[in-house]
This record gives sequence, structure tokens and C-alpha cells, in this order.
Amino acid sequence: MTDYFTETGSAETVNARISPDADARLAAVMASLVRHLHAFVKDVTLTEAEWETAIAFLTRTGQMCSDTRQEFILLSDVLGVSMLVDAVNNRKPAGSTPSTVFGPFHVDGVPERKMGANISLDGVGEPCLFRGRVVDLEGRPIAGATVDVWSDNADGFYDVQQPDTQPQHNNRGIFVTGADGRYWFTGIKPVSYPIPDDGPVGEMLGHLGRHPWRPAHMHFLVSAPGYDRLITHTFVAGDDYLASDAVFGVKAPLIVDFARTDAGPEAGPETPLWQADYDFVLPPA
Amino acid sequence: MTDYFTETGSAETVNARISPDADARLAAVMASLVRHLHAFVKDVTLTEAEWETAIAFLTRTGQMCSDTRQEFILLSDVLGVSMLVDAVNNRKPAGSTPSTVFGPFHVDGVPERKMGANISLDGVGEPCLFRGRVVDLEGRPIAGATVDVWSDNADGFYDVQQPDTQPQHNNRGIFVTGADGRYWFTGIKPVSYPIPDDGPVGEMLGHLGRHPWRPAHMHFLVSAPGYDRLITHTFVAGDDYLASDAVFGVKAPLIVDFARTDAGPEAGPETPLWQADYDFVLPPA
Repeated sequence: MTDYFTETGSAETVNARISPDADARLAAVMASLVRHLHAFVKDVTLTEAEWETAIAFLTRTGQMCSDTRQEFILLSDVLGVSMLVDAVNNRKPAGSTPSTVFGPFHVDGVPERKMGANISLDGVGEPCLFRGRVVDLEGRPIAGATVDVWSDNADGFYDVQQPDTQPQHNNRGIFVTGADGRYWFTGIKPVSYPIPDDGPVGEMLGHLGRHPWRPAHMHFLVSAPGYDRLITHTFVAGDDYLASDAVFGVKAPLIVDFARTDAGPEAGPETPLWQADYDFVLPPA
Repeated sequence: MTDYFTETGSAETVNARISPDADARLAAVMASLVRHLHAFVKDVTLTEAEWETAIAFLTRTGQMCSDTRQEFILLSDVLGVSMLVDAVNNRKPAGSTPSTVFGPFHVDGVPERKMGANISLDGVGEPCLFRGRVVDLEGRPIAGATVDVWSDNADGFYDVQQPDTQPQHNNRGIFVTGADGRYWFTGIKPVSYPIPDDGPVGEMLGHLGRHPWRPAHMHFLVSAPGYDRLITHTFVAGDDYLASDAVFGVKAPLIVDFARTDAGPEAGPETPLWQADYDFVLPPA
């Protein structure tokens, strides 16, 4: 008896077509996707008009993508899918600094800077001293750890978003710890900014009554031989959007007090208005 | 206590952001989508590389779409989603002719033809007499029923796919039944054809070990005042692809015997090689 399509057995009929010669992992992923997608259609009894709206939405989302805009990543971000993929792939032992989404603004080829350097190349913004240690789960300093930091400028834009008006590598730098595991550098206190909301994803957020803002944050990629690579942000305590980050990136242990303070001797020629102390805890690889 | 993102409560955190002022139906559909999407990611522990592949695939799918190509509908079709949306929206009483997917090739503005007319305007293909009745659930003829038919040419293409080489409205026509509920016209026996497989969807089918072929079929849109509108196909019994239609459109009651036969007096000047008898059964609206 041929297994023609029925409402009840819909997913099974589709998945039975996957060849036994197909890659086993691909087959498992696609079969699960089909099961969940069909369950969704059945749960809500998706109407034909809603299906047409979804087709048009996905089409516009794809057509919004360009070399400088990835609307499908944005969609994944605002639906919490990006954070979930991060979560299931980066389950860390208790006490580790938690990971969060990578985001689209990291660049390779940023120069290693001398400890204490100022990464605010345009000098615009509220100067801040960032300092802390890279340590293992027992609190012991990790020497030779690479701290790769990237952040927005005082207007909420990354250098790559404004190549004509920001110096290259503005608010970016790589620092390598010594025997004490310490890092310190000057930059600016980051500011909150909206994700690009002039496309289909922004429209969707509007219909859902959601805002596009991300709370102020610094991005960090921290790595050291023998330890798990950490991709995370630090967030500014007290930011208006901590509880409603458009991409769900906030975790409580990543919120940092930015204290008003005088500069220490490590800060270089600038006089920071702010100081942010944060230790990164890396589990073994 | 702020509800920051966690692996366990991921979907709930995302859905808690939907404003109470959002459209209730949109909110319900999106909340269900998020729940199922997150369950999928968790079920398969989707890797970061797989997520990147998915983002790139969706982007290419959107960018393949044009005025004459809808790759997202194709994706929906080959995953059985289009047939499922059809199924949940067209549950018909027992005895009704079942519906199947509409497809992208219907056009408006096709002329009503005289009963018995030949819709094969280019005269290429194996002539076939199509005839039958439009009836209600009790088998009583429905007068004034509109039978809108569209089909491929002998090479497996619709007129709109070959505007330069096929006459406009080739293998299309609208017929209106009289008091006896009967319809009859001449056309060609349809041939099987592959869905467009030179894009991301074709690539995906290849990786899954699936072929892109659809079994030979005629499209029908049958409507009559006071009855449910029927969108369906008839399929040619014995076709190689009945059990493996790339878009899952086949249902057993839609398979029709195409018998070799001499023309009856209704057939007009052509001499059909084939005859296909099929009654459409419409439930009340």
C-alpha cells in the first residue's frame, strides 16, 4: 500500500522519502525539522493566507541580505534561536563565565595592543578603564590568554558600519595577559543601540509590540591554550534595556558595574570617567 | 527577578516579550512557531556550523526568488508543508473529491470555452477526451458549475513558462456545466515533469537522495454557488512517480484511468487516443 499524504501521517510520509544513502546527520536534522514544522502548522491550523504571508516574509528577508546586512541572522537573533544554538553548544561547568551570541561585528586582523592602550581611536565618548583577570575555575591566573575586544562608538555604531567616518579598528583591540593573568585597557563606556529595524525583521518586531534595542555591551573573545574558547559580552549595569535585549543576549553574571572613578596609573594619558572590573573564568578545554 | 535567557526556558522567555497589545492571532502563531523552532534546535542539538549552513541556505532561497520563480514555495512544497496547509484548511466530508496543492501555474482571465472544445492550442501531444460530471454528495448533478482546468504541454511546461513558444492559454480552459452537470473537452494526456531543481531546493533534494519529479497531472479548480470550492489535480494511473511525487500532491481518489479509446461524438474534430472519465464531488459550502 502506497503511503500517500494524509494530515495525520504527514511528517512520516515526507521523512520516509529520505534516502537511506543520505548523510545520517543531515537525515536526522531534516526529519526533526519536518516533524516540528508540521506540528506547528497543525497546532495553529495555519490558514492559507497566513502561509502566503510567511512565504512573502521569508522571501523579503532573503532579498534584504547583502554583503553588509544579514537579515536571516537578525531573524534568528530576535526569535532567540541564535542564543539557543549558543546555549546548546556551550554548556559550561558552574563558575565559568557564560557565553553569549557572537554577533556580526567581529573582524579578524585586529592588531595586538600594548597592555593599557586606548582602543578609542577617535577619542569620542566617555573614557573608561577596563580591567580584570583571566582565570581558571580555581581562580588561578591564566598567562598568555588572548583578550579580543570589540565595541560600538559613542553613537552606537561599529567601525565596519561607518568605514568612511571611523578610523579602522576603532574600539577594537587584542591584549595578551602576562603571568598575573591581568588585562587592562582604556576605551569608552559603550552605549545601547537598536538593531537594524528598517527591514522585515523590524516590521515583525513592530507587529509584536517589541522594540529593537540592545543594552550597552562590550564584546569579548577570550582564548588560551588548554582552555575553552569564550565568546561573550559584558553589559553595563543599570542599562534601560537589560531586561528586554532585542536578541536575548543578557545573562546575569555578565552584568558589570561601571563605577565613576579617577584613573589609576595603568590608564595611560587619558583620565577615565569610568572603571569596569571583570574577571573571565575559563574552564579547561 | 528578570527572566534572562536560559536553555531550559528559552521559548518562554522569547514569547514573554510579545506585547499584550499585539494581534492575538499573530501572537499565538508566533509563540507556537518559537516553541517548535526551539524544540527542534534542542532535539538535534543543532551545531553552530549547521546553523550557519541553514542561514546561508535560507538566504540563497530568498535570493533565488524572482517574478517567475518562487523558491520558498518550492521549499514548502518539498517539505510537505504546502500539502499540510491545504489539508488542515480543506477537511471535507467523506465522499467529497479531495483537494491538493494549488501550485504556482494557475492564471486568471482564461476564456470560457464551448463544451467539448480542444484546449491543446498547439496541437502537440497525445489527444485525450476528458469528461465527467460535477455532482453533490448525493450524486445529483450540479448545474452552472465552473470547471477551470490547466495543464502542461507535451514537454512538461505550462504556457506561462514558455511565453515565447506556446500560444497564450495553451492547455487551459474554463467550462460551465449545464443541467446534467456534465463537462467534456479535448486536451492532451499530461506528462510528468521535474520541479525546477537548479536552485537551493534542488540541491537539498539531491543531498536527501530525493528526485524532483511530479507525476503527470491535470489541475482543476471547480466551483459552484452553494458548494465548497475545490482545488485539486487528477493524476494518470500507472505513472512512475505516483508514489514519490516531489511535492506529495497525490491522493488515491485522484488517480484516474486513462483508457485508450475511439472518440465519441462529443470530442469534436480531433480523434482522441485516450479517454479520462472523472466526476468531481462537491460538498455544500
